[in-house]
Formats: sequence, structure tokens, C-alpha cells
Amino acid sequence: MSWVEGSAGSPYGVHNLPYGVFRHAGAEPRIGVRIADHVFDLAGAERAGLILAGDALRAPTLNAFLALGRPQWTAVRRRIVELLTGDVHRAAVEPLLVPLAEVDLVRPFDVADYVDFYSSEHHAGNVGQIFRPGQPPILPNWKHLPIGYHGRGGTVVVSGTPVVRPSGQRPSKDGPVFGPSARLDIEAEVGFVVGVPSALGEPVGVEDFAEYVFGVVLVNDWSARDIQAWEYQPLGPFLGKSFATSISPWVVPLDALADAWVPAPEQDPPVLDYLRDVPHLGLDLRLAVDWNGRRVSKPPFATMYWTPAQQFAHLTVNGASLRTGDLYASGTVSGPDRGQVGSFLELTWGGAEPVTLDGGDTRSFLLDGDTVTISGTAPGPDGTTVGLGEVTGTIHPARPA
Amino acid sequence: MSWVEGSAGSPYGVHNLPYGVFRHAGAEPRIGVRIADHVFDLAGAERAGLILAGDALRAPTLNAFLALGRPQWTAVRRRIVELLTGDVHRAAVEPLLVPLAEVDLVRPFDVADYVDFYSSEHHAGNVGQIFRPGQPPILPNWKHLPIGYHGRGGTVVVSGTPVVRPSGQRPSKDGPVFGPSARLDIEAEVGFVVGVPSALGEPVGVEDFAEYVFGVVLVNDWSARDIQAWEYQPLGPFLGKSFATSISPWVVPLDALADAWVPAPEQDPPVLDYLRDVPHLGLDLRLAVDWNGRRVSKPPFATMYWTPAQQFAHLTVNGASLRTGDLYASGTVSGPDRGQVGSFLELTWGGAEPVTLDGGDTRSFLLDGDTVTISGTAPGPDGTTVGLGEVTGTIHPARPA
Repeated sequence: MSWVEGSAGSPYGVHNLPYGVFRHAGAEPRIGVRIADHVFDLAGAERAGLILAGDALRAPTLNAFLALGRPQWTAVRRRIVELLTGDVHRAAVEPLLVPLAEVDLVRPFDVADYVDFYSSEHHAGNVGQIFRPGQPPILPNWKHLPIGYHGRGGTVVVSGTPVVRPSGQRPSKDGPVFGPSARLDIEAEVGFVVGVPSALGEPVGVEDFAEYVFGVVLVNDWSARDIQAWEYQPLGPFLGKSFATSISPWVVPLDALADAWVPAPEQDPPVLDYLRDVPHLGLDLRLAVDWNGRRVSKPPFATMYWTPAQQFAHLTVNGASLRTGDLYASGTVSGPDRGQVGSFLELTWGGAEPVTLDGGDTRSFLLDGDTVTISGTAPGPDGTTVGLGEVTGTIHPARPA
Repeated sequence: MSWVEGSAGSPYGVHNLPYGVFRHAGAEPRIGVRIADHVFDLAGAERAGLILAGDALRAPTLNAFLALGRPQWTAVRRRIVELLTGDVHRAAVEPLLVPLAEVDLVRPFDVADYVDFYSSEHHAGNVGQIFRPGQPPILPNWKHLPIGYHGRGGTVVVSGTPVVRPSGQRPSKDGPVFGPSARLDIEAEVGFVVGVPSALGEPVGVEDFAEYVFGVVLVNDWSARDIQAWEYQPLGPFLGKSFATSISPWVVPLDALADAWVPAPEQDPPVLDYLRDVPHLGLDLRLAVDWNGRRVSKPPFATMYWTPAQQFAHLTVNGASLRTGDLYASGTVSGPDRGQVGSFLELTWGGAEPVTLDGGDTRSFLLDGDTVTISGTAPGPDGTTVGLGEVTGTIHPARPA
């Protein structure tokens, strides 16, 4: 038990301790961990000699810390728990707690490469039915490999960053027209943050997942469906996705998710050897999507067909190297029911079945001024809950042409 | 005229002055420009007070210099020309010239996001015929927008880096099998290096091209056609491309290419306003592809359907921001004739028409030990030639599974 006020029973108690980067009172960005409704200033703690991490915690991003690797991640975590639980260090630590309400949270790490997978069978099936009616919704390759592609690392932004409605080419009966996207959507996903780099030409395997991956963030991969539909043949999504991808400010370490692993859905046909993870486990992360304050969906991450370790192994099986700060997202998380889908494309079935929000507003896709918040929790030790924080964003009008 | 030995008549005279990063005698990487068969040590020149660029030239990569912007790029270039041409500075500069033969060239800049376009009509047409026989080779969207996608910035390597044959899933009659790619290919391209960053949500236009883009490199976007063919539906290329992309070590500044602009192919149908570049100009860059020493192709960059400025404007029209070190490549450069194609897929027509190399060897795709070198030139001022350097790579065997 921590002595920090409010930590008992909090989803952000000492069993969680997610890492972020905050600004306080106009100072430069600093690394901290969240504990209840406070941020523990780790830069200050390292400077005071309370934690030893070779200056990595005094940087303005998590990258140097992420690069240290699992033994150091675990050692630092143990030390933070010590500092926040015993009375020995309380006098030294208390001045380093900053109320969460007083800080601005910035993007916690510099993103190297951003990869987006497509690993929910329900999502792929829904999208297939909507976009290719009358054809088999799941393509022949889908159950053999985790389909994925590279997105734009430079437009990954922290939760709260305004999302300007993108303009682009949209199809029409008379050929393409230029203008603001009329089918602006979300994708509720979970992102995995790579800490330890790997060498070019040397694959890392399913069994190496926890050695390289530090933790998770929530992801909203904003998508302009009309732009995407017109551009994506034959090389995949480009401008329909690259305008913004939002992530939650707190990176929840895998160490906090030890109780969240659950058997993943059985895979049939059997996968090739390099994708065989034994045990075959997914994470029981429970997401929620709020549209202008109304909870419209609860996507269950445990239903994902491809596991985080399989995505990890696939990503490098061709010898592609990993860098500190690589981010790979799961793809849209959709469960079997309409109330469990991770995109509005699915929620409104391609716009054909609008939803009603609070106050009686109806929506097919996002309107200017709309706010979407994705939050999540996971089971923690001894019946506790691990909070995954939230990723939120508000749509701003398109720039005048 | 420069006093540097060999610079008269060299494609690397003072009319060129490409930037790179070199190591000499075990020292840390330093920025230099190539002049004839020497490297002019710009870090040394800045340290000696011969050039003022606010320390940007003393970094181990070009990124800080790239971020300075066009007025500074031009001022530094003028100063370098002064230093290498008058007798005033000769005594101070001569000790800063290092023979090219004594240096190792490293990747000249840290790559932020890597985008690959698909802008040769001949290439798109050839690929369409090979992959979708009997169907219209050019898809309906192709002439309305420069098709592109994001590649993996973290696996962009400098010329000379060994290319390990990637393994992955390939289709077979009995379902996918795992193993080394059997259809390993090249893509001869031209890459554009972004110097000045732009703000998220704010498009930059065709007219802004030269303000943001510093210069060009040659690119070999190695491609595993069998892996690509199986994985690319519906989200585009992923592991078939992400194992390695090689770039030439010398970044040729746009300032050196002022005489290389030529009218680009007429575009029909007319393009949307944001893609209208007036004048509509491409670059007369003449590439050459050598396979184990035999020149198998001479791809003409001037035939590209979409221009560098159009690609630039398209990339950001949705509000995507640019970062220093962004690299966008043209896509495979193929002219109308078989001797002008930029991939072996086209050269051997999907492997059906092998080519004969020196010594009588025949090839459909790359074998282990093969070396491919892409080189290029452009017209310079007063009848001179601007050398674009070369990008080379040798195939190493796949790692044992």
C-alpha cells in the first residue's frame, strides 16, 4: 500500500505506475509516473539520488529509459514502489509529487516507426462486408499472417491535441472532387511501445516479445474513410490515415499487466512456426469509446485474433530492425457485437444506421466539434484494476482551401 | 574554376558539391562536401571559422543543417564555392581536403518518415500487366493522384550496406510456406530529402517545394516480390519492402540541379487545383542500373508522370506535417522501353524472360552474392554534368531459420 493520498483502490495505485512526460509551471518536460491523482517527478527523484538510472530519467522523453531494457525497467519499477510505499523515503518523495491537475502531459516518447496491424477478425469481417458486399469478407491471407502496414510516425500526437479535419480527394460520380473529408472516423486500438532496438537482418521471435516491448498505450488512429477508399488501391492507406494518430499520455508497463494475460482465440488454420506462441495469450484490456460523452462501444481486446507477440515476431521476420520508440498498434479492436466495435464505420454500418448521442443528436461520422475519448482498464493483481488512461481528441474544422 | 586537383571537368566540380557524412582514420562521423575525388571537411571548416552555420556543420548527421532552410543552404553553398575557388583561402582549406579513397561514408541523415510513391506510368502499367493480366493495367485513381504509401524509415541504409535476403511467407499451391524470398528485386528510384519542418494541420503546396526540400539521393527500394504478392491485400506492401532501402551517400542539393528542370509529361485528365504546378517541370536525371557489372537499364527520370512538387503537395494536403529528415521517393523509374525499366520484375517480365549477364550467367531475380549499383547524372550549367553518385548493395544469404 502506498501512502500517497487516494492511491488505495485507485486504478493508478502502485500496481500500475504508468510512465509519462509532463510540464509543470512552465518548466521543461520531465519524466514522471502517475500515482493516484499525482505525478511522481522521476527527473527530480533521479537528481536527488533516490533512483539510479544513468540520467535516463532526466531526459525530456522516455526514449533513453525505454532503451535500457527489461532488467533496468524492472529495477526502476521496484525502486519506485519502495519509494512510494515505505515511510523511509516519504519525506524526500513528498515534495516530488505534483497534482495531476496542475500538469500538462506531452507525447511521452519520440515515435520512430509506426506500424498499424489489422488483427481483429470481427473488424476485418465487418469492413469486408461493408466495402465488398457479396464477397467473402475475410481475404485468403488474413488467417495466415497479421496483416499490417506502416503509418506516419511524425503525426503521432498526444491525447488532447486538436484533430483538424483533413481535406483530400474523394470519389464522386463525376470523378474525384477535393474537399474536407465527409466520413471522418476513429479506430480504437492498443499500441505497443518498443524499447530495445534490434539489429538489421536479424529477426526477433515471439519469445522475445517481453525483452523488447516496454508497455502499452491507447491509440486512436483517426481515419478519413472517403479519402482512404479512393486512394488505397493498390498500395494501401496513405492520406486517409496520416493526418493524425493520437496516443494516451501514459505508457502502462507490461510489468503492470502481468494479471491481464488470457488465452487468445484459437487459430485455425494453424499458423506457421515463426508465429506459434506457446502459451498463446492475449491481453484482457477492456476499452470504452465515448462520443460526445455518450458511451457508444466497449471493444474487448481479448477477442483479437493475432496476439501482440505474433505481431511482434511478424514485424521482424524479414530482418527489419527495431528502434527505440517504434510503435505498433493492434488495428481496430472490435468484438462480435455492435456495441463492441472500434470504429464508427462499423457502429453505423457504413453510415447507413446513424447512432443517437446525448441530447438526441444523430451521427453517422464525426462532425466538427465532436469529441471522442477512448479509455481502458485491465485486471490487476488481487482483484485490483489497472487504468490505461484515455486518449481524447476534438475535431476542428478543415482549413479553408 | 576550383583549384582542387581533378575538379575541372569532374561531375563533382564546384557546380555540384553534394553533402555527405564521412569517417576518416577512426574519427567520429563528420559532415563534408564532395569536390572531385576529395571530401571537404565542413566540420573542420566551421571549427576554423571559415564557414558560419551555427554549429550545424559540426553534427554527426546533416539534420541540423537541413533544418536551417533555403536562405542558409544557399549562403553556405556560396561560401563553400568561395573557399574552393579563390586563392585567398587555399592555404586554410587544403588541409581540410580528405581523399575520398580514405573515408567511409555513412548514412548522411537520420530518416524521419519514409514515403514511397508510384509515379512512373510505364512502371505502373508494366506491373499492372504482369500482376493483373487481361485487366486495365492502370487503376482508375492513378492519374488523379500520386499513389504512395509509408515505408520503414528505420531500415533506410547507406549504399554499401549488405542486404540480407529476407525470409517470409510466400504463396504456394498448398497454402503459404515460409522461407527465403525467391523473387528478390530492386527498385531504382530518386529520393527527395525534406529539410524544413511544417506544422500539423497546415498543408504546404506545390509552390513551397523548394523552400522545404533540400536535395536528392538515389534510392534502391529492395523488394521481395513473392512476400509482397501474398501480403499486400488490402493494406499494401509491408514486409516485402521493409527489410532494407538503400540510399546514395551524397545528397545533391537542388541548387546543383537548376539546369536539370525540363517540362514534365502532359497530364490528362487535368489534375485538381492543389496538384497544378506551373510551370509543370520534372528533373532530367539519367539513371543507370548495373547488375554484377553489366549495365542492364537506363531509367529516365524525366519520363515520370507525377512531378516532385506534386508529390510534395499531395503528401501534406491532408494536413500531415513534415519533419527534418523526411524522405520521399519517386517510385520505380521506368521509361517506355525494356532497356529503361527500374525493376527486374519488368526487365525479365515477371521472371519469364531472363537476362544474360557478363560471363553468360542468366538471371530472373537476384541471387546471393549479386551486386546491383544504381548511378545517375544530370545536366549542369554550361554543358557540365552533375554526378548523383551511386547506391550499391550486395545480396547476402538468408539467415538460417
